[in-house]
Amino acid sequence: MDLTDLRALDEADPLARFRDAFDLPDDLSYLAGNSLGPPPRRAAGRLDQLVRGEWGGALVQAWSAGEWVEAPTRVGDKIARLVGADPGEMVVADSTSVNLFKLIAAALKAAPGRGTLLGVVGDFPTDLYVAEGALGALGEGRRLKLVERDELDGALDADVALLVLTHSHYKSAELWDMAAVTARAQAAGALVLWDLSHSVGSAPVDLNAAGADLAVGCGYKYLNGGPGAPAFLFVARRHQDRLTSPLSGWMGHARPFDFAGGYVPAAGIGRFLCGPPPILGLAALEVGIDLMLEADMGALVAKARRLGDAFLALAAEHCPDLEPACPGPGQARGGHVAFRHPEAAEVSQALVQRRVIGDVRPPDLLRFGLSPLFVRFEDVGRAVQALAAATRRTR
Amino acid sequence: MDLTDLRALDEADPLARFRDAFDLPDDLSYLAGNSLGPPPRRAAGRLDQLVRGEWGGALVQAWSAGEWVEAPTRVGDKIARLVGADPGEMVVADSTSVNLFKLIAAALKAAPGRGTLLGVVGDFPTDLYVAEGALGALGEGRRLKLVERDELDGALDADVALLVLTHSHYKSAELWDMAAVTARAQAAGALVLWDLSHSVGSAPVDLNAAGADLAVGCGYKYLNGGPGAPAFLFVARRHQDRLTSPLSGWMGHARPFDFAGGYVPAAGIGRFLCGPPPILGLAALEVGIDLMLEADMGALVAKARRLGDAFLALAAEHCPDLEPACPGPGQARGGHVAFRHPEAAEVSQALVQRRVIGDVRPPDLLRFGLSPLFVRFEDVGRAVQALAAATRRTR
Repeated sequence: MDLTDLRALDEADPLARFRDAFDLPDDLSYLAGNSLGPPPRRAAGRLDQLVRGEWGGALVQAWSAGEWVEAPTRVGDKIARLVGADPGEMVVADSTSVNLFKLIAAALKAAPGRGTLLGVVGDFPTDLYVAEGALGALGEGRRLKLVERDELDGALDADVALLVLTHSHYKSAELWDMAAVTARAQAAGALVLWDLSHSVGSAPVDLNAAGADLAVGCGYKYLNGGPGAPAFLFVARRHQDRLTSPLSGWMGHARPFDFAGGYVPAAGIGRFLCGPPPILGLAALEVGIDLMLEADMGALVAKARRLGDAFLALAAEHCPDLEPACPGPGQARGGHVAFRHPEAAEVSQALVQRRVIGDVRPPDLLRFGLSPLFVRFEDVGRAVQALAAATRRTR
Repeated sequence: MDLTDLRALDEADPLARFRDAFDLPDDLSYLAGNSLGPPPRRAAGRLDQLVRGEWGGALVQAWSAGEWVEAPTRVGDKIARLVGADPGEMVVADSTSVNLFKLIAAALKAAPGRGTLLGVVGDFPTDLYVAEGALGALGEGRRLKLVERDELDGALDADVALLVLTHSHYKSAELWDMAAVTARAQAAGALVLWDLSHSVGSAPVDLNAAGADLAVGCGYKYLNGGPGAPAFLFVARRHQDRLTSPLSGWMGHARPFDFAGGYVPAAGIGRFLCGPPPILGLAALEVGIDLMLEADMGALVAKARRLGDAFLALAAEHCPDLEPACPGPGQARGGHVAFRHPEAAEVSQALVQRRVIGDVRPPDLLRFGLSPLFVRFEDVGRAVQALAAATRRTR
């Protein structure tokens, strides 16, 4: 395989300049941005400015200056532009798991005649853990029903209140047709809650075009928001005033600074906030999101797809012992590619020695994230070369 | 009033050197650390090291290196030393509101024969908001009962599952006798959940000596952890394995990195984690807590009390129009002092002009936080001088 052709693709790539916006060594092929994105170069400076300038400079008065209080909706509105939501439909808050809990509980409470929370077997484990916990908290008369992916349509019966799905599967990168699934669920009288953690920032997401009801997602993967970055949630405007969060903390109150007795949920998306915004995490996340907005989401999605298609085509040619485990070139797919190999852990270690970082999901899955802001076509070539060498060696 | 005497107290104060650990101008009397503590000087450098060194240096492999995964329990164990808890009884996670929800729901679920959550009228509003939301989520057969402070004993009947109290009142700084209240509640078969937000780091807290069951608290007040810092929770070891968090996210799972089907709560305090740890916020918080540990909690509590006693004595002498609204000199009190004045907002603004920062709780309450790490006796003098001038002016 000749890397020259791939370097030519990088030279022609209008997004190539964004690689320099990250603190990544030139010789490193970082293909684990689907697990933890790298730091944007601006992040350290932004945090320094925040700590010394805002926190140290204004002290408690920074809260009344407004920017901190508005951060959850300001950054939420920016994420909205990446995923086809409108201003006022997203907030940044808490973790993906906590946000899942809020929306699962809110949706089930709003559908008293329906007792089923529907999901699919093998979906992202923490989503199903949170579903279990929410149903346990809400008490009798409700149940979690898990079906195989191809049984979903048949399972959408009159008892289903909510369907929870990860948009892009964390192992296979399979991507649901959001509009089609949403339409079928809504026709059956259910809502759908999408976990966008593995698609936001790398795969096409257009929430309002798909008629989506609810969504959550994380900030530390393709959004490059930093370790444990705050998460986001989406509630379509038509649902906002009929759903209430069980996590009724003061930042979701209609007048949080009145310190009044009795909880009155804010009008609109603000009611899904709970505690005070995590300002340090929000600031780092905003740096990552601003880069995505500079780059244009359509261009990013197109590049991620081309990177994945190239990866799969080159691997098919050069790595006969790797079994593709994700949708093939030209098919709908999330932001990573995946392969099976019986010695996946050893192969991944061999790649690390060659400065190619991917990850492994035991027992046998190799994953490579193709974050379009900083992954180069050359990285795809280096990864396939390293895979070819490593799988030859283990044969 | 002569500030010379107060400066002499500062010169004799063994904690005086900690003022320099904060990024505070010398001419500023910052008495709002009970709302938002100022940045420790080390915070900016620690965040820079974290972003460039750990996040940028190790990228996703920083998670497997362990320090990030252990941060919630490592920092929790440090807070434990400030409040008389044992290692393995505290974690840092989420916000105070989210942690309240977890423990309220867990405690009510564990007491199926008891339906009452008991609290007091006028307690910190967000705690009562969260209680409302938790009861709404948990469904029929449970209720929130609020009584006056002096009616608490009589209200501890056989239906009370849990009593929720803020240890130090956010307005009056009144401090409950934690051991006595806990003993009475436990004798009635109930658990007690203490919100330590307004006492941790400034007032005496000795959870295990008091036989405490459950507690939560925030990181951004006296712990100086930064705006929206992550919060903490405490579960006495004897309760850990019989309580389960409704927020059953993957970080609370017994084996989070197995990605197994079915939620199995971790043994011990780890089961009260939910999403991934907010690493940036945790790092800043740890800097603040490390300073407290360097200074010794007993010395800090003693200094906060002396600062408050001096404030009250001087105000009684020089500010006849201020009505004290907190326990007097020598009485048990949280970390701030409070006064009533009909023009509290104007008085507070006049103080800001003289570089004295306190805060106001409408309609008429002035509060002054006495964070013992950085507040000087001289600050107390400057505040009383400014109060004397401002209240004379408004008379």
